[in-house]
Amino acid sequence: MIGLGVVAGGVARVLTAKAKALSEQVGYPLILRKVKVLESDLSRPQAKELGSQLFTTNDEEFFTEANIDIVVEAIGGEEPALDYLKRALAGGRHVVTSNKEVIAKHGAELFALAQEHGVGLHYEASVGGGIPLIAPFQQDLVANKISGIYAIINGTTNYILTRMASEGIDFPSALKSAQELGYAEADPKNDIEGIDSTYKLAILASLAFHLQVRPQDIHCEGISRLSSRDFKYARELGYAIKLLAIAKERNSLVEVRVHPVFIPEDSLLAEVDGVYNAILVEGDLVGRVLFYGEGAGAAPTSSAVVADVVKAARDIVIGSVTRANWRLEPGKAIRPMAELETGYYLRLNAADQPGVLAQVSKVLGDHRISISSVIQKAVDAVAQTAEIVIMTHPAKEAEMQRALKELERLKAVNEIGNFIRVEA
Amino acid sequence: MIGLGVVAGGVARVLTAKAKALSEQVGYPLILRKVKVLESDLSRPQAKELGSQLFTTNDEEFFTEANIDIVVEAIGGEEPALDYLKRALAGGRHVVTSNKEVIAKHGAELFALAQEHGVGLHYEASVGGGIPLIAPFQQDLVANKISGIYAIINGTTNYILTRMASEGIDFPSALKSAQELGYAEADPKNDIEGIDSTYKLAILASLAFHLQVRPQDIHCEGISRLSSRDFKYARELGYAIKLLAIAKERNSLVEVRVHPVFIPEDSLLAEVDGVYNAILVEGDLVGRVLFYGEGAGAAPTSSAVVADVVKAARDIVIGSVTRANWRLEPGKAIRPMAELETGYYLRLNAADQPGVLAQVSKVLGDHRISISSVIQKAVDAVAQTAEIVIMTHPAKEAEMQRALKELERLKAVNEIGNFIRVEA
Repeated sequence: MIGLGVVAGGVARVLTAKAKALSEQVGYPLILRKVKVLESDLSRPQAKELGSQLFTTNDEEFFTEANIDIVVEAIGGEEPALDYLKRALAGGRHVVTSNKEVIAKHGAELFALAQEHGVGLHYEASVGGGIPLIAPFQQDLVANKISGIYAIINGTTNYILTRMASEGIDFPSALKSAQELGYAEADPKNDIEGIDSTYKLAILASLAFHLQVRPQDIHCEGISRLSSRDFKYARELGYAIKLLAIAKERNSLVEVRVHPVFIPEDSLLAEVDGVYNAILVEGDLVGRVLFYGEGAGAAPTSSAVVADVVKAARDIVIGSVTRANWRLEPGKAIRPMAELETGYYLRLNAADQPGVLAQVSKVLGDHRISISSVIQKAVDAVAQTAEIVIMTHPAKEAEMQRALKELERLKAVNEIGNFIRVEA
Repeated sequence: MIGLGVVAGGVARVLTAKAKALSEQVGYPLILRKVKVLESDLSRPQAKELGSQLFTTNDEEFFTEANIDIVVEAIGGEEPALDYLKRALAGGRHVVTSNKEVIAKHGAELFALAQEHGVGLHYEASVGGGIPLIAPFQQDLVANKISGIYAIINGTTNYILTRMASEGIDFPSALKSAQELGYAEADPKNDIEGIDSTYKLAILASLAFHLQVRPQDIHCEGISRLSSRDFKYARELGYAIKLLAIAKERNSLVEVRVHPVFIPEDSLLAEVDGVYNAILVEGDLVGRVLFYGEGAGAAPTSSAVVADVVKAARDIVIGSVTRANWRLEPGKAIRPMAELETGYYLRLNAADQPGVLAQVSKVLGDHRISISSVIQKAVDAVAQTAEIVIMTHPAKEAEMQRALKELERLKAVNEIGNFIRVEA
């Protein structure tokens, strides 16, 4: 194993405590031989649990150890993990990783390397913690043409949104509380700006739609611009607000996007609260299936890592290799975000005077954006401003972006409070 | 393939329409060679789709055909399916089946036969249609000690309960409507009395807890005794009513039961409506994971059957056999239903006179059953009867059964309207 962080500690604990049962599953002993650590790891509590005879801080020693069949990478991040994974694969070791960033950014290269060296590269733990997701796409749903993925795959943001929805608090206080409880990191950018979700969506979409989706192909917006007012209006209109990772294929064009969405409050995804993850998949045969569970944490992640270790070990025993199924189909492409068609929620702060709604409606109408409902409320009697909330019928993203620019220029519009896409 | 019913027709359609893509998955051509049919199948629409050159009505011809590597059994029911499966396995064919009854009743024997002849027996489609369930237990959750399964695994009953809950109608009208819409069979006994759910729970519990659970080991009650009044009170008390298949292990004792339960209305399982299925699994590492989707129908079931065919074909290509993992652990046993401890909902029709509640409470108290809440309503002013609804704290099933008998004998109690177990 490489690493001795929280996930690695969990994996080591399971491999040690359940050695007998796991070895029975495999048909051969499953032994944790060596752990590549940093000097700084040696003071961690999990170092004391394991016993120092397993540790090495020396890369060379670790990668040339003859007695290792399977390498578990659990350090996360792009480098040096990428380098380590390449060395392990090139050295003919089967590899298990929980590293979403490396798989999302370098999956194609790593799978090719694994194939070249006749070994397996397993990454179930990279998305959704212990929820089986990679295996379903690789095996169980293999007869399906997948048409859509709708996923809550970041527990931190879902926790924050749940607090905002249930308590009416604003983003900064919800984030602070999440940090205090250990659900958000001190530097929360990767989670709250949706970056973590793009890594996971890149992996799922590549598997489901058979084209190479890179994180930078994914339109990404985070949750920091959401206000308690958006939640108030969402509830009034019968919606919940969730950070969704969405991938859909229509006519060989795949749209991939991560951003806050309005979803009907009685939909199953709307019921997914707290740090839980849920992934809804649509296939031509299976219809809609949903997978739900804890998407992070040492124990759930080690459930997936150890299952992959058992899978790799069985492969070794029977002399086979689990195929990556990272299969590319020709003729597929990413759909430009500008071509997206969806409904929108629009919240404007405007002058509380006659004719404002007419002006706003005209701008939208000029861009063929049709309004489905309007709420107008006086917000500040002294400043004479009103809040206008508009729900639109499905419209083109490009037109909506142009309309937003024009709305900003209207004298009567003080500010565009927010705009959020709607998923029916 | 054996059979040409709805599921078989769906499987044949997928194997034919997706032959190219599926063969790419396998690495070898995947060809539907022969379909064993009955004379009566030949007039079905799917017979016309396929072309008669594939059909044979002759068992001998089918089972001696040299060119067949994988047999798909899709006729359902105990016999002749069991005989066919044995012949196929004994003949060295890999077998894929969607037959829950045969696997639940004869799984152990069939897995032994498969092992003896070095072939695989795949049955993902036997539970939950296209929802991956068998594979997760066999592979993805393999590092976990499973503590509980809570499952809605019969779409017909869930559809009926959903109609009763949303429309306030009684069981007979909901059943009639389900039959008219094709969601319930003309003879609905297997579904509404919970028998179908016991087959599926027997399979899941055997896999999860590593002891042989037979359908007859499972305490089984159906939904026909539920009335619209139960749903009214459930809503008043903050609960939904679902037919759950429950399996839990505590100290090597496994409780297995299928019956209607009160579950909190804000729980995820309470949100599962219509013909959908959902299976909640609790493991020591993974925590709670939930799998949701359509549990029946030609397309979802063929999704699972064809995935199993691909799995069997890959095994053949690499010369391996997927292990059944129908592994038994010593020292485990079924927990007698009498030892169950749970909360209860109790609805009594009683004389509307002073002291009745005191009498009822005394009977419960005598059996150490503690009341958590009571609703008493006058029902019939002329007959002077009242309805008493009691929710209890967790109590012993054996004590509750004795208390029910005593309550029935009370002069002031006209009828025990219903009693339903509560799952927190």
